[in-house]
Amino acid sequence: MMANLHIATCQAPVNIAVVKYWGKRDEKLMLPVNDSISVTLSTDDLCTTTSIAASQLFKEDKLVLNGKVEPTNSPRIQNCLKSIQEAARNSGKSPVDPSWRLQICSKNNFPTSAGLASSAAGYACLVATLQALYKLEGNFSSVARKGSGSACRSMFGGFVRWRKGDKSDGSDSVAIQIAPASHWPEIRVIICVANDARKDTGSTSGMQRSVETSDLLRYRAEAIVPRRCDAMEMAILTRDFESFARLTMMDSNQLHAVCQDTYPPIRYMNQISWDIVSLVHRYNELVGANKLAYTFDAGPNAFLFCLDDDIPEVLQILKQAFPSNESDYIKGIYTTATAKTTPRSDELAKRVEPAPAESLKYMITTKIGNGPHEIQQHLCDSKGNTIP
Amino acid sequence: MMANLHIATCQAPVNIAVVKYWGKRDEKLMLPVNDSISVTLSTDDLCTTTSIAASQLFKEDKLVLNGKVEPTNSPRIQNCLKSIQEAARNSGKSPVDPSWRLQICSKNNFPTSAGLASSAAGYACLVATLQALYKLEGNFSSVARKGSGSACRSMFGGFVRWRKGDKSDGSDSVAIQIAPASHWPEIRVIICVANDARKDTGSTSGMQRSVETSDLLRYRAEAIVPRRCDAMEMAILTRDFESFARLTMMDSNQLHAVCQDTYPPIRYMNQISWDIVSLVHRYNELVGANKLAYTFDAGPNAFLFCLDDDIPEVLQILKQAFPSNESDYIKGIYTTATAKTTPRSDELAKRVEPAPAESLKYMITTKIGNGPHEIQQHLCDSKGNTIP
Repeated sequence: MMANLHIATCQAPVNIAVVKYWGKRDEKLMLPVNDSISVTLSTDDLCTTTSIAASQLFKEDKLVLNGKVEPTNSPRIQNCLKSIQEAARNSGKSPVDPSWRLQICSKNNFPTSAGLASSAAGYACLVATLQALYKLEGNFSSVARKGSGSACRSMFGGFVRWRKGDKSDGSDSVAIQIAPASHWPEIRVIICVANDARKDTGSTSGMQRSVETSDLLRYRAEAIVPRRCDAMEMAILTRDFESFARLTMMDSNQLHAVCQDTYPPIRYMNQISWDIVSLVHRYNELVGANKLAYTFDAGPNAFLFCLDDDIPEVLQILKQAFPSNESDYIKGIYTTATAKTTPRSDELAKRVEPAPAESLKYMITTKIGNGPHEIQQHLCDSKGNTIP
Repeated sequence: MMANLHIATCQAPVNIAVVKYWGKRDEKLMLPVNDSISVTLSTDDLCTTTSIAASQLFKEDKLVLNGKVEPTNSPRIQNCLKSIQEAARNSGKSPVDPSWRLQICSKNNFPTSAGLASSAAGYACLVATLQALYKLEGNFSSVARKGSGSACRSMFGGFVRWRKGDKSDGSDSVAIQIAPASHWPEIRVIICVANDARKDTGSTSGMQRSVETSDLLRYRAEAIVPRRCDAMEMAILTRDFESFARLTMMDSNQLHAVCQDTYPPIRYMNQISWDIVSLVHRYNELVGANKLAYTFDAGPNAFLFCLDDDIPEVLQILKQAFPSNESDYIKGIYTTATAKTTPRSDELAKRVEPAPAESLKYMITTKIGNGPHEIQQHLCDSKGNTIP
């Protein structure tokens, strides 16, 4: 074994906002114009794994992302590294000298082609692994935020609120846990991955353009989101799915309304996205309650929420409305076999014209999970080299 | 000739809003939540023609719309009839007794299948023809408004502002002319009629749902539209096409943003609409100025504005991006022969992938025109019967 080699490995989750983050008040420090609330998805189905090896023998920092060597000098990565290394120096108790060079190896367990925002899980995992390496305790979500704004929310499991903060140095712009995953374990998440190669406007440049040109964005941030975040927190704390679903859908719609109000306008939702929106509202109308909810980020993929009892019916309805011949069409904790015909799914099938086959690439079924955690299976060997 | 038969015939124009009307503060009186501004289109290409015959021998009111007998007892029609007949009684100078029954015959010179809002031209024509019949002078736009809100704007030619008014009886909610068509005769309008059979949410129920559920609508109406209307009026008065185009596009986008912020969300713009939006922004980017502008109402059809000098290039670009094999693809004041290749149209053709053929049904090319006017060719004969 290499002298003085230290190594730590963590897994960190993806999160999906139910009250959206859209717009920064400080581009460099990644300070948002409003609070946001997210749910953390189970790392069983979607996660980033990162190993970091530190040794005084390493000549330089090295980063391998999904098997590909990437530069380490991006401001986002450097901001994270420097903040944590400074904290390690200040703690004086770290077993690893913060001046040692690092070999960082990171990979996702989901296809990057899915268009699922992986940067939140990625930066949360980087920060969590650095915390583990340097043995630092505490809330480091504001450091993850400097990598990618929404990464701060992936530093906790369950239901998370990112407080926008008021200070200009961003020290109070942190994520806090509203409730752990165990508080409401019945919630299920279905990610509908759209078959669409179109290149979207990136979220960073998109939100920048919205801040510069949308009159509605500021009103949303100042007058609407504070109330909505409080209502959402209450819906979560009282496990009120009806309100959780309504607020989630309204806030997703408002994010995309702000994108349309941007000049030139930004469009993330395509025909398939709108077919899903329409299906969800028709289903809820038929049921007479909000049993299913959608939310969309900066892309056409839908994130659906429902309760575990309704999963067989909901999967059946999705299968009927978005047919596919792929054998592995439903991935994650449920499979195609879970889908079950019910009188309601039959009724809806009669009313809804199915989308063209393969409109969706696949669906990932998952649930709400915990925050970053350390694991013992490293991605690099005892010399710090990536395990192929 | 039938004893005491009086007959009058008018033509009235379609108008297209450049600052949008979306939301009523009074459903019955058709009072809007904000001012709006429109341009009136030439009746040469798009108009309603209405003849009204009055005789003491008629037993009952009769209405024939586009060759089909329709009931006359709808509140919208009755509101218009009663208001004008009361004014005729009060004037005391009308050659026609306001208690005589009417035979109303009305038709559009454009296909109703085009999905162009014909109710504005229709109610403006009804009111203008009643004015002609009863020989009433003055601004009767508030009466047209009771038929269909935006009809009040079709009571004038050129550039028109509908003042929302403040009074609860709606008497100050009237249209006024900003400038006649002759003020800026170079403006051209291209209506791109989308090939899409989808049934949209009607604008009446759509705006009602927006008023009830969209937080952004109220802010738009109170804080944004007043400023925008003043800026638009200034752009028109100074013939500043750059600003006219920018404000037109921004306000169209904001209308559709409010629709998306409605719950459940309303979607009028489809893939073809967005392809047009994208093409317009790419063209303007290439030119380095806003030479072309789009606006969308409660449907997927685009209304484009440009100046007459740019028409050959713009038509060429539209033909390339939205190919069609229809011989009569470009209707109105220009034809396919007007389209001319330029270095810029060549450049754009290289960058833009054409939409599938026949994505657009056809285009109507027109210009800004005058308000309602009386004509002598009646749609009904000397007995008051419809001429087939």
